[in-house]
Amino acid sequence: MDFRIGFGYDVHQLQQGLPFWLGGVQIEHTKGSLGHSDGDALIHAICDAMLGAANLGDIGVHFPDTDPSLKGIDSKILLRKTMDIIAQIGYTIGNIDSTICLQRPKVKDYIPKMQAELAKALDVEPQQISIKATTTEKLGFVGREEGVTAYAVVLLRKN
Amino acid sequence: MDFRIGFGYDVHQLQQGLPFWLGGVQIEHTKGSLGHSDGDALIHAICDAMLGAANLGDIGVHFPDTDPSLKGIDSKILLRKTMDIIAQIGYTIGNIDSTICLQRPKVKDYIPKMQAELAKALDVEPQQISIKATTTEKLGFVGREEGVTAYAVVLLRKN
Amino acid sequence: MDFRIGFGYDVHQLQQGLPFWLGGVQIEHTKGSLGHSDGDALIHAICDAMLGAANLGDIGVHFPDTDPSLKGIDSKILLRKTMDIIAQIGYTIGNIDSTICLQRPKVKDYIPKMQAELAKALDVEPQQISIKATTTEKLGFVGREEGVTAYAVVLLRKN
Ligand SMILES: [Zn+2]
Ligand SMILES: [Zn+2]
Ligand SMILES: [Zn+2]
Repeated sequence: MDFRIGFGYDVHQLQQGLPFWLGGVQIEHTKGSLGHSDGDALIHAICDAMLGAANLGDIGVHFPDTDPSLKGIDSKILLRKTMDIIAQIGYTIGNIDSTICLQRPKVKDYIPKMQAELAKALDVEPQQISIKATTTEKLGFVGREEGVTAYAVVLLRKN
Repeated sequence: MDFRIGFGYDVHQLQQGLPFWLGGVQIEHTKGSLGHSDGDALIHAICDAMLGAANLGDIGVHFPDTDPSLKGIDSKILLRKTMDIIAQIGYTIGNIDSTICLQRPKVKDYIPKMQAELAKALDVEPQQISIKATTTEKLGFVGREEGVTAYAVVLLRKN
Repeated sequence: MDFRIGFGYDVHQLQQGLPFWLGGVQIEHTKGSLGHSDGDALIHAICDAMLGAANLGDIGVHFPDTDPSLKGIDSKILLRKTMDIIAQIGYTIGNIDSTICLQRPKVKDYIPKMQAELAKALDVEPQQISIKATTTEKLGFVGREEGVTAYAVVLLRKN
């Protein structure tokens, strides 16, 4: 069996009055994520980790922010497409681990729902997708609530 | 054999006059790490990577900063407990690689002692635990000496 | 077969009028990367991930910025030396995945050349080296164009 690892990192600005999508779930908050798509930093980091592990470029190559058909798109669709792309060349997901960096609000209670949504989009077991959350202790742009970031690592297998 | 990977990231503020715990070792410095526990960013990043790889939530779930029994606790105890949690479901540590981001002081000379302390807490060989250190070239909150961050990746095995 | 994983992170300041080396390629830009060597953040992150996976310390240990013989050195030479160091103890590269964080300029068109340069320095297939690029959406020191950062993960094998 062959293994490959990937890493993804994504950043979005938070702005007043926008909807806030994260991990395929809408978060209740006064601010939301700015982006060409729905701005879901967690899903984008996971897509990038999957594409990186398979050496297929990055999310900007596959889903350019200049493509009008992707304006406001649900990132779960991008995640499903990313899964199709890597499956086509014989990869399956071993496991995904991810970290949300967000000062406010607490997202802990959303995590089981995020896991379920991502597992459904990827057609894997929720047990294969770990989602963790942390603040940055009020430091930096995340700490000042100007943005949200996400990290993801993925282990792929090829039989 | 089954493999799983995990990733951890942690941030703590640095403040004048606090003790500075990092990698299970006390660092001589005018500032130290603010936190509910002893504020050891490196150990917390490693715990999070281990929990993430095993898909068991994050450090905030297992060791909440609202738990008075954890006030000021030595993070090596949290690391030992994390090891027990993942061992209970059959995982062992393949290897850990970690990175400390700190502008000052240089921690290079502390690294062998950190490795020994973490290996002892985890009951693994020091050779399984890599600890690296870098500055952020005076940029960002780490560069301004407002905080310390740590990254960790871990490879777990299940027989 | 034995596997080990590693993680690297590197930061360099960007300053007016310096040459800008990234991924072994010179980028056309008004700013460039400040460093003791040629300041190639991507190569340094990859070196650190390789050394970390092999538990051989970090780039600062092997190539100290106080060594006058390394002043202005082409980082591809450091990458080649890092490969020699890990090969000597029996490791080969499974795959590398990396992420450049840079606000400007767009580096997408340089990536195939970077892959070719890094593959040549490491004596591996370009297919084993993934390079992705992202902005930080104008946030933080990368967003303010004060610096460039890079992340890398690597999977090593030992037969
Ligand atoms: Zn995004
Ligand atoms: Zn912590
Ligand atoms: Zn560097």
